[in-house]
Amino acid sequence: MSFQGHKAYSRLQELAKKPIDLTQEGVLNSQRVDSFIAEAMGMKLLYATERVDEEVLKELFALASEAKAVKKMTSMQAGEIVNFIEGFPSEQRPALHTAMRDFFDDRNTAKMAAEATDLAYQELEKLKDFLNYIEKQARFTDIVQVGIGGSQLGPLAVYLGLEAYRKPNKRAHFLSNVDPDDGAKVLKRLDLSKTLVVIVSKSGGTLETLTNQEYVIEHFRRAGLDPKHHLIAVTGKGSPMDDPNKYLASFYMWDYIGGRYSVTSMVGGVTLAFTLGMERFLDFLRGAHAMDKVALEADPKKNLPLLSALLGIWNRDFLGHHTCAIIPYSEALSRFPAHLQQLDMESNGKRIDKKGHAVQFPTGPIIWGEPGTNGQHSFFQLLHQGTTIVPMEIIGFSESQYREDVLYKGTTCQEKLLSNLFAQSVALATGQKNDNPNKFFPGNRPNRILLSLRLDPFTMGSLLSYYEHKVAFQGFIWDINSFDQEGVQLGKVLALKFLDQFEMLRQGRKADAKGFALGHSYLRHLS
Amino acid sequence: MSFQGHKAYSRLQELAKKPIDLTQEGVLNSQRVDSFIAEAMGMKLLYATERVDEEVLKELFALASEAKAVKKMTSMQAGEIVNFIEGFPSEQRPALHTAMRDFFDDRNTAKMAAEATDLAYQELEKLKDFLNYIEKQARFTDIVQVGIGGSQLGPLAVYLGLEAYRKPNKRAHFLSNVDPDDGAKVLKRLDLSKTLVVIVSKSGGTLETLTNQEYVIEHFRRAGLDPKHHLIAVTGKGSPMDDPNKYLASFYMWDYIGGRYSVTSMVGGVTLAFTLGMERFLDFLRGAHAMDKVALEADPKKNLPLLSALLGIWNRDFLGHHTCAIIPYSEALSRFPAHLQQLDMESNGKRIDKKGHAVQFPTGPIIWGEPGTNGQHSFFQLLHQGTTIVPMEIIGFSESQYREDVLYKGTTCQEKLLSNLFAQSVALATGQKNDNPNKFFPGNRPNRILLSLRLDPFTMGSLLSYYEHKVAFQGFIWDINSFDQEGVQLGKVLALKFLDQFEMLRQGRKADAKGFALGHSYLRHLS
Repeated sequence: MSFQGHKAYSRLQELAKKPIDLTQEGVLNSQRVDSFIAEAMGMKLLYATERVDEEVLKELFALASEAKAVKKMTSMQAGEIVNFIEGFPSEQRPALHTAMRDFFDDRNTAKMAAEATDLAYQELEKLKDFLNYIEKQARFTDIVQVGIGGSQLGPLAVYLGLEAYRKPNKRAHFLSNVDPDDGAKVLKRLDLSKTLVVIVSKSGGTLETLTNQEYVIEHFRRAGLDPKHHLIAVTGKGSPMDDPNKYLASFYMWDYIGGRYSVTSMVGGVTLAFTLGMERFLDFLRGAHAMDKVALEADPKKNLPLLSALLGIWNRDFLGHHTCAIIPYSEALSRFPAHLQQLDMESNGKRIDKKGHAVQFPTGPIIWGEPGTNGQHSFFQLLHQGTTIVPMEIIGFSESQYREDVLYKGTTCQEKLLSNLFAQSVALATGQKNDNPNKFFPGNRPNRILLSLRLDPFTMGSLLSYYEHKVAFQGFIWDINSFDQEGVQLGKVLALKFLDQFEMLRQGRKADAKGFALGHSYLRHLS
Repeated sequence: MSFQGHKAYSRLQELAKKPIDLTQEGVLNSQRVDSFIAEAMGMKLLYATERVDEEVLKELFALASEAKAVKKMTSMQAGEIVNFIEGFPSEQRPALHTAMRDFFDDRNTAKMAAEATDLAYQELEKLKDFLNYIEKQARFTDIVQVGIGGSQLGPLAVYLGLEAYRKPNKRAHFLSNVDPDDGAKVLKRLDLSKTLVVIVSKSGGTLETLTNQEYVIEHFRRAGLDPKHHLIAVTGKGSPMDDPNKYLASFYMWDYIGGRYSVTSMVGGVTLAFTLGMERFLDFLRGAHAMDKVALEADPKKNLPLLSALLGIWNRDFLGHHTCAIIPYSEALSRFPAHLQQLDMESNGKRIDKKGHAVQFPTGPIIWGEPGTNGQHSFFQLLHQGTTIVPMEIIGFSESQYREDVLYKGTTCQEKLLSNLFAQSVALATGQKNDNPNKFFPGNRPNRILLSLRLDPFTMGSLLSYYEHKVAFQGFIWDINSFDQEGVQLGKVLALKFLDQFEMLRQGRKADAKGFALGHSYLRHLS
């Protein structure tokens, strides 16, 4: 059944004509705050400031049930093929990122999942041995992760998120862009003799990553060092990079792990375990695994990722909003929105459903965001008084990571941070009447708050998994394929045509270059 | 005359019903690339991939003329009052950021502007003397800029943009968030005895900044250092922070410089001149000043910021797009989109016009973005095949900053970067037909390219000014006030109420705390 064919769809369309008005005196009261709340694994989702009432929730839950959302999640975690388009050539793969951390209680016994977990556990053991080995040598203080997209965004976001927990003598750096200034800047500050470099590419053929590998190798050689004693590979078995002779160590990933879902595999594992230590990396996996179980919960009021997915669909398809801002009130999560941009927009920025039909409804929104309170002094003006409404998911923590604080004017920094978080949530929802039109706030800006005790490795893992499953649930309900990325292909092909132009011009073959007149034109405009 | 009252408005509405189809074979050809181009100060704007033709351009130019856009820009640069709402209490101020860099040829002779320039020049001379003085002492290697919003975003974006040009022994750091983990992380890595701290707050009353000042002072004391020998103030004359006894040096800014327009004032000046040196900082100002003059050009085909503003209005108000992505193909510009978020969204995220009437058309779009090629491996899937169209402004440079490059598979990194830039622009515009619906690209995604030779101090200044004026032009044409930010007030007031709650609970006055039942409710949910 297509998304728009569900019975709940038309009832929700009806309800969306007159959603609850949060600006009315007394509507957003304590009772509403206390009842529109869901909790699991120490994480609370407060959604009193969304434009939903019991009736809307009932229909959203009916929609999830009609779309068999939890059943599809169960299939996904079991390793059934979820990455496909019916009737057309497609990747035809499972999506088994949950198997990358199924090492704890209540393991999935489905054959595919169990096999994937066994393979992943072998890599984890290899990593443990490797880290012990290099730790004894005490040779390395820094690690550079060379990779782009999912091989950078997730690992970087988590590394920064947990920097408060890293070993004092272990640092990570990330090199992704083919922009030569990226490499120059990153390598400039390192003592290469103490540096490990992990090259990450599932296909072993990512242009940016291979180019940067070459860039790094050249720098090692210039420094009189043998790159083979510094380079590690994370790649698919049998890929062009699967060549142990070239690397100090190699770790595998599999084609059932999408780049944007790969943080808990070796793609994130090598750098995170090197800098945090194996115990904390395992805590991170444990947190992700715990949320994987929450995502299997049938009751949407207990299934946080599903509830968040439904609220997102309400905002996107019924209230008609095009974007969703993710605002962590935590400086450590400064790059988490960038990870979610890929996770969400590459998964659900799709225009056909799983039967290959062009969809007639909005799919994945534009995800963007910056930490609060910083954002308040930047773009929040538009959120409060602009002409486009931006639904928001706010992430907050009761306690800080370093627990270094000062009392200033009677309150701590952490209390100021939380006061601002709550105040923005309420202000966006309720607005404010005023006779001065410039001081009038229309309100009814939907938002929700995701609250935990502290951003530690376990919670970071849970947060990561929460969003992975939120995105997957939206895909299941829209009946689109959240696990491929055909949309990146055309640009790649065209880039090669432009590269040919550069090569021909370098070789003085100007006449040939004119065969691609458009490309020739663009290149002429380079100063 | 209101925006929708202009004659060109209704003609543009008519034209928007059938905009040029860039996916038609041959429409995007060399001739179009070569004719849809504007150039000034070594900067080229290539806009063949926008959905405009000569007729649309003619009407957009008529719109600019009816709205007296260039005349208003001239008034603004002369120091007339542009920050006002008619008939209601408002700030009633000029916006004189252009006077902060009017130190070169062809100075503005209007009284207000000339006076502002004289004052700014005094501060510049003070800064020069101060930097010479501390340079002789050779005491300081690091500077921490404490400030939020415009006191952080612009200076940080420019510092990172020009890091390739900084003095090898001078580094800058930024502390903005009231999150205590921000301060802990920044101060952790510094030798405070060699550290200058510049506290930036025009009002002298920004909660985050004063709290962080306290945080920093406490760390200096703990390290046995006298904060007075390390702290510099940048603030308004007569503000609570205007107290030379507390600071090693003080520099002024004025109420006619909005935070988001303050990078070229002392707000950016102290940190940028400290790290880059005065000569390069002056080059940066020179670049900004040169673009200020371009913005006074009557012909929109030569006035790059105006042309860009008009293309943005076409996309926003006539083609109906809600966001605009800024994609710099330059890792150095990684935080430039965050600066533009504030600049644009805080300026033009408004719902009333300058007469106090609620507008009936979309104003400022949501601005977001990340560097390319990184973005290609992240959210570009949605840009190519999603259900929401995202207009894009791409920023590129012919040459890299460090000029360290490798040849890999026949081309350099820089050539790969540029090939991807051009390829994305073309792919988004033309799309691609395919019988497999998953390989079909609808195209007609409007975008433009801003191309310069190299990101050096002069070009960085020009880029900054280009966007300042683009935003101002859009405000002039929409007839909204781009220079206030009333939308941030409500959250501030509510945050104080929550802070009171925390304070009462700290003091054990639980009964009192219940006076703000909603606040009490939220606080109870903190774990």
